[in-house]
Amino acid sequence: MKDVASAAGVALKTVSRVVNGEPGVHPATAERVRAAIDALGYSRNESARMLRRGRTATVGLVIEDIADPFYSGLGRAVEQVAIDHGCLLLSGSSGEDPARERELVRTFCARRVDGLIVVPAGDDHSYLRPELDAGTPAVFVDRPPGPGIDVDTVLCDNAGGAERAVGHLLSYGHRRIAFLGDSPSIFTAAERLAGYRRALGGLFDERLVVMRPPGLGGVRADLERLLGGEAPPTAVFTGNGRLTVATLRALAGRRLALVGFDDFELADLLSPGVTVVAQDPAGLGRVATERLFSRLRGDRGPAQHMQLPVRLIPRGSGELPPE
Amino acid sequence: MKDVASAAGVALKTVSRVVNGEPGVHPATAERVRAAIDALGYSRNESARMLRRGRTATVGLVIEDIADPFYSGLGRAVEQVAIDHGCLLLSGSSGEDPARERELVRTFCARRVDGLIVVPAGDDHSYLRPELDAGTPAVFVDRPPGPGIDVDTVLCDNAGGAERAVGHLLSYGHRRIAFLGDSPSIFTAAERLAGYRRALGGLFDERLVVMRPPGLGGVRADLERLLGGEAPPTAVFTGNGRLTVATLRALAGRRLALVGFDDFELADLLSPGVTVVAQDPAGLGRVATERLFSRLRGDRGPAQHMQLPVRLIPRGSGELPPE
Repeated sequence: MKDVASAAGVALKTVSRVVNGEPGVHPATAERVRAAIDALGYSRNESARMLRRGRTATVGLVIEDIADPFYSGLGRAVEQVAIDHGCLLLSGSSGEDPARERELVRTFCARRVDGLIVVPAGDDHSYLRPELDAGTPAVFVDRPPGPGIDVDTVLCDNAGGAERAVGHLLSYGHRRIAFLGDSPSIFTAAERLAGYRRALGGLFDERLVVMRPPGLGGVRADLERLLGGEAPPTAVFTGNGRLTVATLRALAGRRLALVGFDDFELADLLSPGVTVVAQDPAGLGRVATERLFSRLRGDRGPAQHMQLPVRLIPRGSGELPPE
Repeated sequence: MKDVASAAGVALKTVSRVVNGEPGVHPATAERVRAAIDALGYSRNESARMLRRGRTATVGLVIEDIADPFYSGLGRAVEQVAIDHGCLLLSGSSGEDPARERELVRTFCARRVDGLIVVPAGDDHSYLRPELDAGTPAVFVDRPPGPGIDVDTVLCDNAGGAERAVGHLLSYGHRRIAFLGDSPSIFTAAERLAGYRRALGGLFDERLVVMRPPGLGGVRADLERLLGGEAPPTAVFTGNGRLTVATLRALAGRRLALVGFDDFELADLLSPGVTVVAQDPAGLGRVATERLFSRLRGDRGPAQHMQLPVRLIPRGSGELPPE
């Protein structure tokens, strides 16, 4: 700072004022100080300064997998809102591993993030209790926290969306509709199963339900088994974007009515176009992060639980009649 | 720490040893200390500790847009290598804005990241000079830094890949091949133009070249103009994944031979399948981050400039004959 002051021909106090954004410096002088800072490559040690203030202007985000388009869309929105609030984002992928989720949250907290946005992998979040009690706000998005942790949550209407998807297939004459879902231990998968079941009512047949992590090999085998059975389904409802893509690949052009949960790029360019129930991943990320900043601004109200709507986009695959 | 020591019934020094991973603690005792830490929610202030050591175990990543599948694949690989080295990732998207790139790098440096991985938006990186001189290593990936900054770079074979794509179309009888590329100010776009030009030789016709940022409206208008002209192209080479998708959408089923730079999910499920020159975004991220950790381990050798190969994947669209 002394070098900057000397290069700019100002007092040390003036440099400090400019660096800390304090008033009382003539704009032309401030500009000269900034030019000197640029020339000398001085950068104040933000971490140390923030630590003294007790704030780090950092938000921690735990998502499932940044390479999954649903989560990268969500993450991009979180990042944008954080930037708009002058904050940086620390992010990490849990890969559906509760231990890894916990490790990420702990590491973020050890780095003193101001707040957390969490897409949980596990269902026990008691480890967060001390952080919450110490005043670090957390917002759960896409999936709720486990029992006993009452924090803001932003979810989409999973059960309602599934009900809508299956109702759509029913309205086109289908009576045997399979469900390919993710592991039932995942909140969204269980909710979508509930919506599927509700829409089918008396038509529900558990033999048409397969729930396990997405993977082309598994999906292909499941489909062959379902379609080769005694009373094969005439339609399928796929429980997330990755399952939809795996199913399309496994079908390899065979016609089967299909509605997928989650929209995806190029769904409209396939033949037939893929009918989906679309979530709004960017909306989830945005609403959750705005909630977090409300908490950081001092909102001490009771936990809010928000549900974002989904919408059905008919494109062809969901309007195929039963064979 | 006193509470932990008292809860675990050990000396303060023992807690410190366990927390800092030092030897000399019986495994059962260490386990008791960790249980007490869990129970009390103690987390050492990692930031403060790292600052004292002069290391933050944090890597900063500047990419173009985390919501672009190419960059989210690259970012995921960077994250994985960082995690494997016990580091966290700070990441931000520049959105092709050089000022934003610079702001992100500065912010990361002010937070004392140990090293930087940069996909540059601009071509002036003199602002990095002081950080590099101060010993913060940087690796540029996907695009090189501007003049005067000699750091490790990991690029793909952009010109060679473009030459390969255009050579493929030539081998199927095309003589009028359009190029839809990104802004010529972007390194990869300029390199791909160079490869396109080299492959065409005397067949090069600048009227068939359009270079501008991807956007469906622009691509649609460009295609209409090209296809409605006096000597329309019989094939198109698209310069990146977003341009390929915009072109497919603008074509809306019309047949035009096409090879795209960059692979994308579902390229094989479209009809015809989309022939691409595939880069390896995860490979770029992985190699760049491994390079960064070599530097952090003390490698002081001259800057390395690595080029990763690309591969052509024929799927149908690039094998259509001229109309």
